[in-house]
Amino acid sequence: MVSSSSSNQVVNTYPLSSYTFGTKEPKMEKDTSVADRLARMKVNYMKEGMRTSVEGILLVQEHNHPHILLLQIGNTFCKLPGGRLKPGENETEGLKRKLTSKLGANSATLVPDWQIGECVAIWWRPNFETIMYPYCPPHITKPKECKKLFLVHLSEREYFAVPKNLKLLAVPLFELYDNVQRYGPVISTIPQQLSRFQFKMITN
Amino acid sequence: MVSSSSSNQVVNTYPLSSYTFGTKEPKMEKDTSVADRLARMKVNYMKEGMRTSVEGILLVQEHNHPHILLLQIGNTFCKLPGGRLKPGENETEGLKRKLTSKLGANSATLVPDWQIGECVAIWWRPNFETIMYPYCPPHITKPKECKKLFLVHLSEREYFAVPKNLKLLAVPLFELYDNVQRYGPVISTIPQQLSRFQFKMITN
Repeated sequence: MVSSSSSNQVVNTYPLSSYTFGTKEPKMEKDTSVADRLARMKVNYMKEGMRTSVEGILLVQEHNHPHILLLQIGNTFCKLPGGRLKPGENETEGLKRKLTSKLGANSATLVPDWQIGECVAIWWRPNFETIMYPYCPPHITKPKECKKLFLVHLSEREYFAVPKNLKLLAVPLFELYDNVQRYGPVISTIPQQLSRFQFKMITN
Repeated sequence: MVSSSSSNQVVNTYPLSSYTFGTKEPKMEKDTSVADRLARMKVNYMKEGMRTSVEGILLVQEHNHPHILLLQIGNTFCKLPGGRLKPGENETEGLKRKLTSKLGANSATLVPDWQIGECVAIWWRPNFETIMYPYCPPHITKPKECKKLFLVHLSEREYFAVPKNLKLLAVPLFELYDNVQRYGPVISTIPQQLSRFQFKMITN
């Protein structure tokens, strides 16, 4: 099936000021070093096979330009909200669970009704190393991780509860673009992956 | 509308050896320098407004890995087949016209039935300069060019006629990835833009 190509998909984007931000208990990283993280990944791989992780791209707008919500740990490292699926877990349900764990309030009535949208990128980790690729490299028959990025369609009003040890930043696409040094290969190429969408900037 | 996200779209990819390549009369570049090109762009902008260009990503496979067909001019510069739309021209029809001009045989019966698929990226040129961005930069109200990249779904067998002054190369994704020096920002990030698709490698 070849889909229609001449009209771009519209994504509604609301002002950062539409959203309310609170705090909640800290969510500590499971590992204190990259080596620890890769070692834990190896142990989990032995038990459960390839790791599948899912991450959400949450968009807001400021000054008529799209911004992405990133969680900052310490002073430099930024990541998308998301995490590892349980073995056999559905991607959409798993991403909702992870978004709630990272950004949802403790009161269920305040948790956003996460609308998980399009898969925009898939990254592969061929070995127990930090490097990932946007394809499974040739001759790699047993990749160690598959990471999928999804657009999350936010409603006009939401309440986010940010763990006290993290900061939630709204980073403009122009800051991410061509900035692999600061954001790494996965996050710095999100502008290219989103370029096919038409962002409808809704003001209030 | 939020589309279903858990199954990735499948793209059939056939071996390079399924395709037949011939030659045709040379297609010379309209400009002999970057400065000439930007000057011609400016003249056209005055007459017709923003330039819209469309380019096709034609996929084949070798050794079970996706490759993209690129036209090489001289010894280094590579480009996707495509070109500028006429004012008011439909994107899909315009891309078909350009693909036929670049790669179609002179005999109409041999020209592929181009299946234009998904738009995978959109790039913007804010000024009469070489630099483009995967978003329209803030405060730019009159971009000078919008370039759209589309997946082109090839049939199992096709005949391509390559202009005698150009070479047609099948370049693997792993060669394009992270290789902005050789392929530029638009082509070197195609692997990321295609990562969301599942390539079904068909062998014969």
